[in-house]
Amino acid sequence: MSQKLQVAVAGIGRMGMRHARHFATLTPRAELIAVCSPVQSELDAAKAEFGCRTYTDYETMLREEKGLQAVVVASATTVHAEQAIKAIERGLHVLCEKPISTSPEISQSVVDAYSASIKKFPTQKVICGFSRRFDASYRDAHARMAAGNIGTPSVFRSQTCDKLDPSGFFVAYAEFSGGIFVDCSIHDIDLALWFFGEETKVKSVTAIGITAVQPDLRKHNDRDNALGIIEFYGGKIAQLYCSRMMAAGQEDCTEIFGTDGKIAINTQPQLNLVNLYESTGIRREIPADYYGRFREAFITEANEFTASCLDNTKPPLRLDSAVKAVTIGCALQESLITGKKIEFDESGKRVEASHL
Amino acid sequence: MSQKLQVAVAGIGRMGMRHARHFATLTPRAELIAVCSPVQSELDAAKAEFGCRTYTDYETMLREEKGLQAVVVASATTVHAEQAIKAIERGLHVLCEKPISTSPEISQSVVDAYSASIKKFPTQKVICGFSRRFDASYRDAHARMAAGNIGTPSVFRSQTCDKLDPSGFFVAYAEFSGGIFVDCSIHDIDLALWFFGEETKVKSVTAIGITAVQPDLRKHNDRDNALGIIEFYGGKIAQLYCSRMMAAGQEDCTEIFGTDGKIAINTQPQLNLVNLYESTGIRREIPADYYGRFREAFITEANEFTASCLDNTKPPLRLDSAVKAVTIGCALQESLITGKKIEFDESGKRVEASHL
Amino acid sequence: MSQKLQVAVAGIGRMGMRHARHFATLTPRAELIAVCSPVQSELDAAKAEFGCRTYTDYETMLREEKGLQAVVVASATTVHAEQAIKAIERGLHVLCEKPISTSPEISQSVVDAYSASIKKFPTQKVICGFSRRFDASYRDAHARMAAGNIGTPSVFRSQTCDKLDPSGFFVAYAEFSGGIFVDCSIHDIDLALWFFGEETKVKSVTAIGITAVQPDLRKHNDRDNALGIIEFYGGKIAQLYCSRMMAAGQEDCTEIFGTDGKIAINTQPQLNLVNLYESTGIRREIPADYYGRFREAFITEANEFTASCLDNTKPPLRLDSAVKAVTIGCALQESLITGKKIEFDESGKRVEASHL
Amino acid sequence: MSQKLQVAVAGIGRMGMRHARHFATLTPRAELIAVCSPVQSELDAAKAEFGCRTYTDYETMLREEKGLQAVVVASATTVHAEQAIKAIERGLHVLCEKPISTSPEISQSVVDAYSASIKKFPTQKVICGFSRRFDASYRDAHARMAAGNIGTPSVFRSQTCDKLDPSGFFVAYAEFSGGIFVDCSIHDIDLALWFFGEETKVKSVTAIGITAVQPDLRKHNDRDNALGIIEFYGGKIAQLYCSRMMAAGQEDCTEIFGTDGKIAINTQPQLNLVNLYESTGIRREIPADYYGRFREAFITEANEFTASCLDNTKPPLRLDSAVKAVTIGCALQESLITGKKIEFDESGKRVEASHL
Repeated sequence: MSQKLQVAVAGIGRMGMRHARHFATLTPRAELIAVCSPVQSELDAAKAEFGCRTYTDYETMLREEKGLQAVVVASATTVHAEQAIKAIERGLHVLCEKPISTSPEISQSVVDAYSASIKKFPTQKVICGFSRRFDASYRDAHARMAAGNIGTPSVFRSQTCDKLDPSGFFVAYAEFSGGIFVDCSIHDIDLALWFFGEETKVKSVTAIGITAVQPDLRKHNDRDNALGIIEFYGGKIAQLYCSRMMAAGQEDCTEIFGTDGKIAINTQPQLNLVNLYESTGIRREIPADYYGRFREAFITEANEFTASCLDNTKPPLRLDSAVKAVTIGCALQESLITGKKIEFDESGKRVEASHL
Repeated sequence: MSQKLQVAVAGIGRMGMRHARHFATLTPRAELIAVCSPVQSELDAAKAEFGCRTYTDYETMLREEKGLQAVVVASATTVHAEQAIKAIERGLHVLCEKPISTSPEISQSVVDAYSASIKKFPTQKVICGFSRRFDASYRDAHARMAAGNIGTPSVFRSQTCDKLDPSGFFVAYAEFSGGIFVDCSIHDIDLALWFFGEETKVKSVTAIGITAVQPDLRKHNDRDNALGIIEFYGGKIAQLYCSRMMAAGQEDCTEIFGTDGKIAINTQPQLNLVNLYESTGIRREIPADYYGRFREAFITEANEFTASCLDNTKPPLRLDSAVKAVTIGCALQESLITGKKIEFDESGKRVEASHL
Repeated sequence: MSQKLQVAVAGIGRMGMRHARHFATLTPRAELIAVCSPVQSELDAAKAEFGCRTYTDYETMLREEKGLQAVVVASATTVHAEQAIKAIERGLHVLCEKPISTSPEISQSVVDAYSASIKKFPTQKVICGFSRRFDASYRDAHARMAAGNIGTPSVFRSQTCDKLDPSGFFVAYAEFSGGIFVDCSIHDIDLALWFFGEETKVKSVTAIGITAVQPDLRKHNDRDNALGIIEFYGGKIAQLYCSRMMAAGQEDCTEIFGTDGKIAINTQPQLNLVNLYESTGIRREIPADYYGRFREAFITEANEFTASCLDNTKPPLRLDSAVKAVTIGCALQESLITGKKIEFDESGKRVEASHL
Repeated sequence: MSQKLQVAVAGIGRMGMRHARHFATLTPRAELIAVCSPVQSELDAAKAEFGCRTYTDYETMLREEKGLQAVVVASATTVHAEQAIKAIERGLHVLCEKPISTSPEISQSVVDAYSASIKKFPTQKVICGFSRRFDASYRDAHARMAAGNIGTPSVFRSQTCDKLDPSGFFVAYAEFSGGIFVDCSIHDIDLALWFFGEETKVKSVTAIGITAVQPDLRKHNDRDNALGIIEFYGGKIAQLYCSRMMAAGQEDCTEIFGTDGKIAINTQPQLNLVNLYESTGIRREIPADYYGRFREAFITEANEFTASCLDNTKPPLRLDSAVKAVTIGCALQESLITGKKIEFDESGKRVEASHL
């Protein structure tokens, strides 16, 4: 077998550890050589599990790991862009967790850094980890749509709804998350762009929301349930629902309505293939969180990113699409708070209210 | 509108009252004129609800109700045949609840009475109420099969499983029910004959069973869970499951496996179109009993029986098929108790063990 | 049995004939005595089927049918209000098909007429036929919600999506339908009011839409697919989808998200309990139209309306709620066309854009 | 990380290559070092994919691979036992594909060889690969049952139904497969033993069958559709269905009925989470074969077998249970052909017909 891709993971909190595990044990063509984190206990846990080198400082890791080829940026969202750019500038491949940034401008700066860098390192791959793009069901749906099975996709409905966490976690988290549309719906927006075509241009967004279970979210200009509608140029529309209030578990689903049919993904969620017949009826459980739903997709992501780097093949998704998704997510979040509809011209510029 | 069919109901226990209600209020072309029951309180209830005449004696009712055209026999199974024959001999139309009798011979005597009577009353209709034949889903399935959609139907699976009744009702009931294969599986056997063709001949039956929740059923040579397999001449086989132990409710379902496809009926039972998303997962309820599942079928039965009588059209099912169903049900019940496989030659005669 | 309610049906097109049939044959306590229609062939068909009297003129019918107690208004929407008011003023009970009118003002005039009339005829019942309120699944859902099973209902999602009709019917129909939000979503809006509480006040609506399959709908300021979001005072939000483009059949479903759980109605639509296993997979059909889905509800409506009239009990729904539903539907339709968000103050008055 | 388990695969046909791939790339603690096959093209393919050593002769491989620790026997069923015994006698760990043999006696000889060998090699692990024991859904079901959630498991229903293969493959295959009950139902029988308890003793078996699509199977005393019922001592019963005739794909499902509830596994089969809404209704695909259904289970099997070998922990299943499963499968196959019920006493001995 050929040489394995030498990978480091930056940020090994809950999701970073999962990425580390996927690359260390479930990505045959990759080797996890190092991790970094400011938290010593996390480094100890990673060393114990993977036997890799550990660093408290990201730049030190980049500098000292001479054989390093690829970095997975799984740190706090606030440092995604900075860490990604540092790796990009060294010619390293980068898999950056979503979102690149909660700011469209900062997200764009990563795209710009990559555009500059790729001239120098023409085989360099940089992607943003929209895990659903690697999910077998979403891929099956996309392939059927691309084959024309539903005619012209015209209406899109998608939701990302988290299980209620009564601990108050989401209130603290909201300070840096960019808001529920940027944190949750970013996946749905990315899917809308994928299904409608990545050249699709947003025309307007409108959002409304409430705080049904976590009123303190208002301190951070956030909501726990929000609805958004998006118009795209070219006669396509989308509706989104994001929530932190689901009782049963993670409820993510998507429907693509075309002129000749519809494809539904996960509209009947389930944990596995078990149904329980009890005195109260028939019951099934559903995954408690996104990882329960998308674990396989993350593993596929690790493997395909690795293959793309090693074989210098087209990366599995486009980086600039991530900027579009954040831009739309931020506009929805703004509309959610201001109550205003936000419009864009075909060049992507905001149309000011005074011009309406 | 034409003259309404003048109907009486014999036996107005739980199911008899439902029949009475169907004919009185949900069968526009019928009129409920009388009921009979040995129980005065039942008669009072019927009079209050329907305003019909009431009788404590069946023969009195037949004699005194001069305009009577049709009788629904919904009394205890032990008197089905006797009451049916008395009505038949008077030239009345008869809808007899299933089974005609727990004895094949007695069942045959009703068929014989009808064969004799119809010479005198050529428009007379006598049917045994296999309600599933009137169910929209079973009919849709049968029509698709008959249209050749699944090729040659070859394997049949069906189950009639009652909700657990911890009151001990089924123990007392077992004394006269004919046993679980005659009481429950008679429906499944009738369906097998319907789907395989009513000319289909049984070749062998074998059954096994247990008493998992009601050991006292053994006093009446009955079981609370039983499995049976049936061979038919012509390369067709069936498997049955009957039970008194379901926790969630009535679980009746059927599958017909053909050489080109399968049709499944009610393999995902449900009370209605509601799903509940709770902290324990997604739950739906199911009907508590056969009436919750088949109410519409009983109403259709009442209307089609009425139409057949008034319009002198072909009755919706054949009476002799009911004898075949009871014969097979009794053989399964015997096999359940003796542990022996029971075989039949192509003329329908038992092949004795000594000849094997 | 007591005296039967004497009923006439005004307008016996497709749905009017169904109402006539429900009252004539499936509503034991009612008697269909007359129908009216300007179309002689419709009158002939009704006479043949029901044996009732027929009129080409509505007022003549009201005048001549001395024993008439109740009128079902199932004529073209444009004359609903006028016919309803004429019946109301005569003290007749009225079941008016939805919508009362495509105009909130005209709808309100019917409510006003009823308010005036009821002083004179205190037992008079006037309802608008929101059939879903009579559907067993919606009722089960509402009862569970009312019992507190999902905590506080906070987010509502509902869709009314018709099967694609390539004949162009909907283009001609759009001239008088009031638009897709008034014609289709009126049901979803009514449900939102029912589930959130009929006192709930709308705060804002926003809508977007496209013409994906019927561009000619634009001639009548209509769309074939539209998305709407509604804010209510009191921290409740709703999202709607209406469409004329479904390939598989009628796709109506509703979800009510509460602080402790969710109830979903018909999110897995089905024609019946049959599943077909074919070489292409597992398939089930779904109802082709709203009557395929809601026939039982219409029959329940007829029976409950009848009982309410005969027994002078509370009618099964409130008339003024229908005005609220039309008002919201019209605002959504306006937003769909103008692209503007429309806001209301707590008294229900429009907040003008200049005040924003 | 600790030393990796050094694994060889014997037999690299379709399933052998999959095992090789699982160990080579998806079992982090294992290393695939060698494969053997009499077919050079298979060896070439394995070398190209895995870079491992290749052998045309099994014994040569065992002799020359000095570091070998474990063998996966995935060759033709006819040599399973012989190859397993050779590896056992060398003290190697063995994962033998099911069935060990189509003969209970030969199967027992492998158990005996292991019993002898383990005295010399006390950490040796030998298992038979009943893949469903490693499936997440079956495990979830078993855990719930073991926790008492359904009371006492009493009735078991399970089916293994293959997609129709019109090529005639199964006719040739039947010559050595041991028959449909040994080839397909062995999994269901193993599951029955697992759910009822591996000490459970068979009391009787009866089977019937047909050749609906492949009459040539009769040449090898086989059938393409068969039904079996099994009595166990202790009041437990099971029903089985095996088929080679499914149109839609692989249809494997299992239900365990307990005194307090039921667990159903895969009674609503699906390929993934996609539903297609088309003009013919709602459709979903299902896996085409057992690997499409159980791939994850095979990977778990590889990992758990590896862990058990490396860590000297209890193997994930008992070898002697495999002999019981084959014994029951062979008895069912015999009953299928002879038409006789076969009975066993509590010591496991056949009760001869003459004693009945």
